[in-house]
Amino acid sequence: MKITGTFLDEISYDIPHQNWGPEEWEKDFQDMKSIGIDTVILIRCGLIKQISYPSAYLMEKFGCMEPASDLVEMFLSLADKYDMKFYFGTYDSGSCWDKDAFEYETQINYPLVDEAWARYGHHRSFAGWYLSVEISRRRKVAAESYAALGKYCKKVSGGLPVMISPFLDPVKAEDDQKAALEAHQKDWEEILQIIQGAVDIVAFQDGTVPEWELENYLRTGVTLMKRHGISCWTNCETFDRDMPIHFLPIKWEKMWHKLCAAENAGIDKAITFEFSHFMSPNSIYRAAGNLFKRYKEYAGIK
Amino acid sequence: MKITGTFLDEISYDIPHQNWGPEEWEKDFQDMKSIGIDTVILIRCGLIKQISYPSAYLMEKFGCMEPASDLVEMFLSLADKYDMKFYFGTYDSGSCWDKDAFEYETQINYPLVDEAWARYGHHRSFAGWYLSVEISRRRKVAAESYAALGKYCKKVSGGLPVMISPFLDPVKAEDDQKAALEAHQKDWEEILQIIQGAVDIVAFQDGTVPEWELENYLRTGVTLMKRHGISCWTNCETFDRDMPIHFLPIKWEKMWHKLCAAENAGIDKAITFEFSHFMSPNSIYRAAGNLFKRYKEYAGIK
Amino acid sequence: MKITGTFLDEISYDIPHQNWGPEEWEKDFQDMKSIGIDTVILIRCGLIKQISYPSAYLMEKFGCMEPASDLVEMFLSLADKYDMKFYFGTYDSGSCWDKDAFEYETQINYPLVDEAWARYGHHRSFAGWYLSVEISRRRKVAAESYAALGKYCKKVSGGLPVMISPFLDPVKAEDDQKAALEAHQKDWEEILQIIQGAVDIVAFQDGTVPEWELENYLRTGVTLMKRHGISCWTNCETFDRDMPIHFLPIKWEKMWHKLCAAENAGIDKAITFEFSHFMSPNSIYRAAGNLFKRYKEYAGIK
Repeated sequence: MKITGTFLDEISYDIPHQNWGPEEWEKDFQDMKSIGIDTVILIRCGLIKQISYPSAYLMEKFGCMEPASDLVEMFLSLADKYDMKFYFGTYDSGSCWDKDAFEYETQINYPLVDEAWARYGHHRSFAGWYLSVEISRRRKVAAESYAALGKYCKKVSGGLPVMISPFLDPVKAEDDQKAALEAHQKDWEEILQIIQGAVDIVAFQDGTVPEWELENYLRTGVTLMKRHGISCWTNCETFDRDMPIHFLPIKWEKMWHKLCAAENAGIDKAITFEFSHFMSPNSIYRAAGNLFKRYKEYAGIK
Repeated sequence: MKITGTFLDEISYDIPHQNWGPEEWEKDFQDMKSIGIDTVILIRCGLIKQISYPSAYLMEKFGCMEPASDLVEMFLSLADKYDMKFYFGTYDSGSCWDKDAFEYETQINYPLVDEAWARYGHHRSFAGWYLSVEISRRRKVAAESYAALGKYCKKVSGGLPVMISPFLDPVKAEDDQKAALEAHQKDWEEILQIIQGAVDIVAFQDGTVPEWELENYLRTGVTLMKRHGISCWTNCETFDRDMPIHFLPIKWEKMWHKLCAAENAGIDKAITFEFSHFMSPNSIYRAAGNLFKRYKEYAGIK
Repeated sequence: MKITGTFLDEISYDIPHQNWGPEEWEKDFQDMKSIGIDTVILIRCGLIKQISYPSAYLMEKFGCMEPASDLVEMFLSLADKYDMKFYFGTYDSGSCWDKDAFEYETQINYPLVDEAWARYGHHRSFAGWYLSVEISRRRKVAAESYAALGKYCKKVSGGLPVMISPFLDPVKAEDDQKAALEAHQKDWEEILQIIQGAVDIVAFQDGTVPEWELENYLRTGVTLMKRHGISCWTNCETFDRDMPIHFLPIKWEKMWHKLCAAENAGIDKAITFEFSHFMSPNSIYRAAGNLFKRYKEYAGIK
């Protein structure tokens, strides 16, 4: 199971910044390319007051701060140059996650989608949309809102695909694994009925269930998605959730177990959150460069 | 707005040690010099049992541990050599911060100031004093104590300037910004009346209010200080307070917003906490080296 | 006081992984050798579901995950090659630490000891056993269990030595230091009567009491151990427990104080937890490489 896509986490909740400029980014795109990454996904175009491009809409409407540069333009140009697909991540206002807030979160994104498409839709690498607010089966109340936003993205862009990356609700050691898996199946079946036709790709975050349970969750996902004509990807997290330092690169063996689980489950494509901090030779973390080496050995890349 | 000064955080509360020896320190002073840093401020000469020079007073009186080397002598020699101004930071016994403790904290520093001046006052780079216990407008009860200590420092040293670096009391998102700003103005007016003549420089920590509120706070500070003949500097923090890992180098864009705010507010001089960990090419953190590059691009330094 | 041994922390509770392969490990063994390290101790051979070698017993009995490689074989081969002594650390199932759990923890390790000896006992570097569950004077209720396990290890392996590395119960600043030290002495006297003949080496963790109290604790330990014919080592921790980031390399000066305390107390041998992350030039943490330099200056190693 090869990693062929990665998120770009430039406007981050919780990952420290690497302080790269255009040169460092170009070097990293080259290294992505060298291991077969063909897809990059902007995790979000803005978070509360920080934004990744000088959006007139976000600066006027939400008082966002003018960015130092246009990251979206830079990423799209690099994706054009290195022949990758770019997914544009929507804005996250930071409001909390009940049903009404979710509706609000999606409502405020309609004008943003218009603006983004008008500014950047001409890039040949502009390949789709990423709905950035994370959901899970326990937030299915929100499915109608983001299904509507997904449809709007597709309409504006002539049908470009829409991706989400939900987390798997963690199952504690003492829980009944069988019951948890049945709930996962039942809830996602209901969600898929709502989002079918609005969302094209579901990439489950693979770090919120134990590695030894993952294969069952992914296999259930694959079966469900197939029935609804949705692609089932895995978001193979390359940061470690289980260490006291939040967050450093994952242990290779753990990543290997997760890739094996995805392969066994028949997953369509593996992406990661994310290459540049956690598995790049250019990362500020040396363990990421070592992970890059271990991954290349596994994937048979020289 | 250029960074022309930095703290030296060798006896640290919460920043991991880089384990530099004299060679690594000299290299770092050279890199400071290369971007125009002309001022270094020892954050404190001792903290509880750890001390930065073999102080007979602190070892006898507080059972401090003998240090492995004389850092103060090393820093002053480097400052002499590279033509920088050195500020000596007072001792922090670690006692808590009520009024009585504050008086105690300042009382124990009188003999220390004598000792430090006797040992190091001959260095031509010995340019002033830094009162190391942090204060804020909500701790104004303490102002009389450290005004007295400031006056004593000046008396001992023939009038060398005294610096403090208070934090701005954080204002939560839901607070009334206007009221918070008025309280900031009113309280600092009272403090300045007390410390006038004892403190020459106030360098506000710029990381405890949101970047988009900072300019107002600094502008208020500049106006107040001018009235009292006190220099108003900004302490442009180069570590990130808002990430789960406490602490790694700040995102360049955030630093840029803060430098712009200081420039717009008419700030006299910008220093940072601190160069060696957070924006140096020699730092143990690679993001610091990248911040150094971004800062040099901004400042037009080759 | 020289560091001549180190733990190997490949199956870790709380230290992020460096993602080394065989090449990186060989380089690190060479650097260990260069400063006189002659002893390596595997901290544990497995933790809950993660294991360091493909143990049929652990995979069948506890559903442990198949490891990506056989680390134990690799470590023993490197220890053979570089003429070091290797101590094998027992399995930690993660169950809690009351008396019954402790008995359970030791019971499940009997078959493991058999398996490990059968697989690896032929290596000439296989020099002893490390009982991996940590104890302290307040857990003396557990002494009988691990004394039994220690005896079993010795029986299986023809009398190879058994090591433990207990922590010193932390003494708060406000506590009565004299009373704490007496309790330390009394409790350890009782423990030693139980474990005598089953445990050959006690290496106290040196990071849980203040540096300025350490010498007294170690001296008491040395006196007690001598009476019972047990070697008294120090486990000189090279990570810093007192900083907000858990955990980064320790400040050299702190390590120096601890080594001086051990030397003054007449300690037999100093090992560390652990070289590869915290004091190696190959570490992902640059401060570790700097600590390596400072340590070599202290030890007079070119």
